[in-house]
Amino acid sequence: MEELRIGLVGTGAIGRSHIERINTRLQGAKVVACADVNMDFCRSVAEKYGIQAYDSGEEMIASDAVDAVIVTTLDPFHEQYVTAAIKAGKYVFCEKPLAPEADACRRIVEAEMAGKKQLVQVGFMRRYDPGYRQLKALIDSGKYGLPLMLHCAHRNYDAPGFTTSMPVENSMIHEIDVLRWLLGENYKTAEVVFPKTTRNAEGELRDPQIMYLTTESGVRIDVESFVNCRYGYDIKCEVVCEEGSLNLPEPANTMVRSNDSRITPICHDWSERFIDAYNIEFQEWINACREGRVDGPSAWDGYVGQVTAKAASKARDTQTVVNIEYEEMPEFYKK
Amino acid sequence: MEELRIGLVGTGAIGRSHIERINTRLQGAKVVACADVNMDFCRSVAEKYGIQAYDSGEEMIASDAVDAVIVTTLDPFHEQYVTAAIKAGKYVFCEKPLAPEADACRRIVEAEMAGKKQLVQVGFMRRYDPGYRQLKALIDSGKYGLPLMLHCAHRNYDAPGFTTSMPVENSMIHEIDVLRWLLGENYKTAEVVFPKTTRNAEGELRDPQIMYLTTESGVRIDVESFVNCRYGYDIKCEVVCEEGSLNLPEPANTMVRSNDSRITPICHDWSERFIDAYNIEFQEWINACREGRVDGPSAWDGYVGQVTAKAASKARDTQTVVNIEYEEMPEFYKK
Amino acid sequence: MEELRIGLVGTGAIGRSHIERINTRLQGAKVVACADVNMDFCRSVAEKYGIQAYDSGEEMIASDAVDAVIVTTLDPFHEQYVTAAIKAGKYVFCEKPLAPEADACRRIVEAEMAGKKQLVQVGFMRRYDPGYRQLKALIDSGKYGLPLMLHCAHRNYDAPGFTTSMPVENSMIHEIDVLRWLLGENYKTAEVVFPKTTRNAEGELRDPQIMYLTTESGVRIDVESFVNCRYGYDIKCEVVCEEGSLNLPEPANTMVRSNDSRITPICHDWSERFIDAYNIEFQEWINACREGRVDGPSAWDGYVGQVTAKAASKARDTQTVVNIEYEEMPEFYKK
Amino acid sequence: MEELRIGLVGTGAIGRSHIERINTRLQGAKVVACADVNMDFCRSVAEKYGIQAYDSGEEMIASDAVDAVIVTTLDPFHEQYVTAAIKAGKYVFCEKPLAPEADACRRIVEAEMAGKKQLVQVGFMRRYDPGYRQLKALIDSGKYGLPLMLHCAHRNYDAPGFTTSMPVENSMIHEIDVLRWLLGENYKTAEVVFPKTTRNAEGELRDPQIMYLTTESGVRIDVESFVNCRYGYDIKCEVVCEEGSLNLPEPANTMVRSNDSRITPICHDWSERFIDAYNIEFQEWINACREGRVDGPSAWDGYVGQVTAKAASKARDTQTVVNIEYEEMPEFYKK
Repeated sequence: MEELRIGLVGTGAIGRSHIERINTRLQGAKVVACADVNMDFCRSVAEKYGIQAYDSGEEMIASDAVDAVIVTTLDPFHEQYVTAAIKAGKYVFCEKPLAPEADACRRIVEAEMAGKKQLVQVGFMRRYDPGYRQLKALIDSGKYGLPLMLHCAHRNYDAPGFTTSMPVENSMIHEIDVLRWLLGENYKTAEVVFPKTTRNAEGELRDPQIMYLTTESGVRIDVESFVNCRYGYDIKCEVVCEEGSLNLPEPANTMVRSNDSRITPICHDWSERFIDAYNIEFQEWINACREGRVDGPSAWDGYVGQVTAKAASKARDTQTVVNIEYEEMPEFYKK
Repeated sequence: MEELRIGLVGTGAIGRSHIERINTRLQGAKVVACADVNMDFCRSVAEKYGIQAYDSGEEMIASDAVDAVIVTTLDPFHEQYVTAAIKAGKYVFCEKPLAPEADACRRIVEAEMAGKKQLVQVGFMRRYDPGYRQLKALIDSGKYGLPLMLHCAHRNYDAPGFTTSMPVENSMIHEIDVLRWLLGENYKTAEVVFPKTTRNAEGELRDPQIMYLTTESGVRIDVESFVNCRYGYDIKCEVVCEEGSLNLPEPANTMVRSNDSRITPICHDWSERFIDAYNIEFQEWINACREGRVDGPSAWDGYVGQVTAKAASKARDTQTVVNIEYEEMPEFYKK
Repeated sequence: MEELRIGLVGTGAIGRSHIERINTRLQGAKVVACADVNMDFCRSVAEKYGIQAYDSGEEMIASDAVDAVIVTTLDPFHEQYVTAAIKAGKYVFCEKPLAPEADACRRIVEAEMAGKKQLVQVGFMRRYDPGYRQLKALIDSGKYGLPLMLHCAHRNYDAPGFTTSMPVENSMIHEIDVLRWLLGENYKTAEVVFPKTTRNAEGELRDPQIMYLTTESGVRIDVESFVNCRYGYDIKCEVVCEEGSLNLPEPANTMVRSNDSRITPICHDWSERFIDAYNIEFQEWINACREGRVDGPSAWDGYVGQVTAKAASKARDTQTVVNIEYEEMPEFYKK
Repeated sequence: MEELRIGLVGTGAIGRSHIERINTRLQGAKVVACADVNMDFCRSVAEKYGIQAYDSGEEMIASDAVDAVIVTTLDPFHEQYVTAAIKAGKYVFCEKPLAPEADACRRIVEAEMAGKKQLVQVGFMRRYDPGYRQLKALIDSGKYGLPLMLHCAHRNYDAPGFTTSMPVENSMIHEIDVLRWLLGENYKTAEVVFPKTTRNAEGELRDPQIMYLTTESGVRIDVESFVNCRYGYDIKCEVVCEEGSLNLPEPANTMVRSNDSRITPICHDWSERFIDAYNIEFQEWINACREGRVDGPSAWDGYVGQVTAKAASKARDTQTVVNIEYEEMPEFYKK
């Protein structure tokens, strides 16, 4: 089979990391073209990777030289390029969020459904993390009974420039997707509370924050977001089931006995934590594109994620418990 | 110094475990007398331990043969015996709760203050657990900044006969006391939520339950109570501070590699988990009695605990967030 | 039953720690008298603890004021006081080693047998450590098959003044006893090798050292001694059985997430590691004395330990594998 | 750059796993051809993977259709194909061992040196395992001082068909290479001892076995081989340095609290443990071939490994300590 030729629009840090990943580490595809609103920068990136620069994302997406598309622009521009890819009938991987606003996500869903072919995958990479996959397998085995509560945390060493709305919308959006996938059911309510604020929070930022989600069957989830935790990048997830508790593993690092202690390193930065997940995510996306299907988080999952994030933001801003309304998942997206 | 002669009223399982503990393992005291509403049973216990049976707790407490008192009766009878001990001017250790009702606790406080001498200690043994003591030392060192959130859990393998009111009032009463002691400040609000109920909950029992407490300075605490967790007896406490997270240790047990696994035993039953805490608690109480002071949880701590538990129960029954009103701690109890 | 009145000879640091332990923490006994070759120092110790000073250990041991004896003198003087206690027909606890020389141990054994009553216990406290007891229970259960290999380590942060002979004779003497007890069989050969020496070893000291022991049934044991490990006090013991590996637990300490790491404290000094073991050891010795028996490591165990240590020292000095000859355990010592 | 076209000779299980790995997961190369002494089987493999079958390995190696070679035949045939690749001036990856006999390895070294170009890499994949790489970085940092002792273990759940010579020559050959690489120096002596044999050892097999290696600077290494450990596949490596102990991490797996235990899975089979190492090893070999160099374990490393294994085998068979003679590493192989 021919190698999948990918065009990537949005050559910022994340976009470039995906070009490197695909062009040097993965199989079956090559990023052959790039586009960016900053054309000079785009050309320098194209030169560095030996790929073709396009003056516009739409032009690149429509081109015969490109079989599939990756969208890594700033969030507000995701919609235009994902929609262009759908129009061109090409598979498109869109970094999260599908779009910042739920209605933009809805438009993408409708465009995809109108095209009668599932083409869109959203970049919720935690579904591909070996640890989360182990958790899902254990839950699905039924061996420990039904999940009743999830206790999660998402902590960054620091987060320069973060504002109070960002934990829910940028950070915990990952938990919003992966926990729904783990449990296999929709959310019902969202709530956000503010514990005592850390002295390390800049300006008006409320940090930490805790988001509570409940599901249709009554599972209760707490997700702690602490973006200035000052000790490392740390992801925690405990699934408390009827007859056992399942715990997301931490990355495997050398343990040193030194200085009257047992010391095991933790990631310092988010970019270290999910490298495997990104690699597996993209390799499976490439494989699925080449076999003519979408396996991963769909545009519907992206839409549902944004609806949930908006409800949680409303809960945060009103300091109330908000009921989340979801439409019925269209047949089109059912597996 | 003479050995402290203790009279114990309430010869149920807990009372008998304390007689054994003091008479065979600790220093400086002996339980020399016992009383129980069931006199025949009381006499058989007295015979077993070679101590003196009394027909009434009051009689025993008033007797010259007894220097100090331990109250391990059913909860509703704590008040009468603690008050009798105060009247007799004798040190009294009362198993938790000081009394089931906050106003009964208040009466005990007033009786103690009227006697002008602190005499009452309440049996909140977790303050003596080496792990909790390490946590407190780390918090107090200030090395990791201020505590912002506590994530706790209190899980039993099973709990035959438990009703929906018992997790807050009987089980989480321990967290109510020890977390206030860890943080060194009063609570401000309480809330109780019901996640999905386990199929292993008998009858109408709602299990698990989660209690949220906030403190005056804004620290947010979650305590998960799961009395039918079906995997063991498990106590968790994570203190998330401004610059580090502190984690209560689990008991040290042999790790076995077997059957494609690393396996470390967990306690099965509550009675295994805090043996050291009970021993240290009683030895320190005995030492303090002999030196003429009360070191441990006071009647005021018992009263505050019950006020908190009642607020949490109201929160549970009304499914609202309840503000907790505390009176100012009298000078009498300040250290 | 009357409290056991103990006379302690040898008021150095270890002796004083036992006086404190017994007189403030344990049940059923009191150290009522002490003796030491340094009489002035002995008197100041006696004054501090409110006990009786004797001008000579023999006088104290013979006195009617003393029911049982603890020997914590310098090693070369153990024999004379243990023998005096045997002559007086009194239970005697002797800190390890029973005596520095195997023939001195043999004389003590013969004196004890001649007196027709077992009176002597040697202070090998690791048999009382909860972790080692768990290991023994797991081995004895047979659940994991027979032990085949033991991998052990005994590491000190530093050891000022240590010479090359001391690791085997002073430090690993504990492993020599406890591993024989764990396995329930005698050793057959000993060997000592010198890995590369640490730059932190003073003068001529060879550090680390590794001692290999084999047992009659062929179990092979390695014990690493590293007295200047510069990271803490650390005891390791892995029992590799036919169908599982059993691992001595480390003490339970708070784990802190801080500074891009998970950090759990280790003991810094030997005196922190076996506190529970010493307490349990002495309480059980006191209980056994009062009930008229010896439960713990016997004079025979002390003798066997020294024979083994001597063989290992010979192995070290000759750099050969030495066969260890043990006499048959007399009926007198069989349980 | 053109994709590297690889010919693989020896289509057994390991060979086929490398074909899959390279053709579906890695970058920059494709296995385009295969050969095997069993021609029918070779053709079916070729058909399955859509590659070209050759009637002889030599023919395939010489062909213009092949740029580089992988040798995964039975060990005795490694020499002929590696030599053929050297003659053809093509990069060749040879699964361990380079050859079963040290003199065959020597001939390969001489052939490679005669060709004046380094072409050969040996498949010691542990050098690429992220955990071992972390260990090496910590050792090389010097932060913990010099290594003094290594304590290692290599355990298999079971090993049908294993004979007494195989632990050293087939199993511990991995430790022989990776530990020399970790320490950056040659071995000096080898010794092999037999602990008590497990009842689960078939026939005459002596299992477990312990190999001792010392290095030129005096580091002492123990490697326990236990091929019927009956609990899983388990690799242990502790590097005891002058001021700290470094511990190879175990794979990260979900921890479950269940059944009165904390349970974390261990690999059952060897094939699960080093998947990442194999992927990294081959990707780096492919990258290096394309850039015209050999980065990984060289033919000299393969030769040294066999010399060491032979010395250890002699030590095992004679039950003596054997001095290992190495020739000086030729300039040709120095980096």
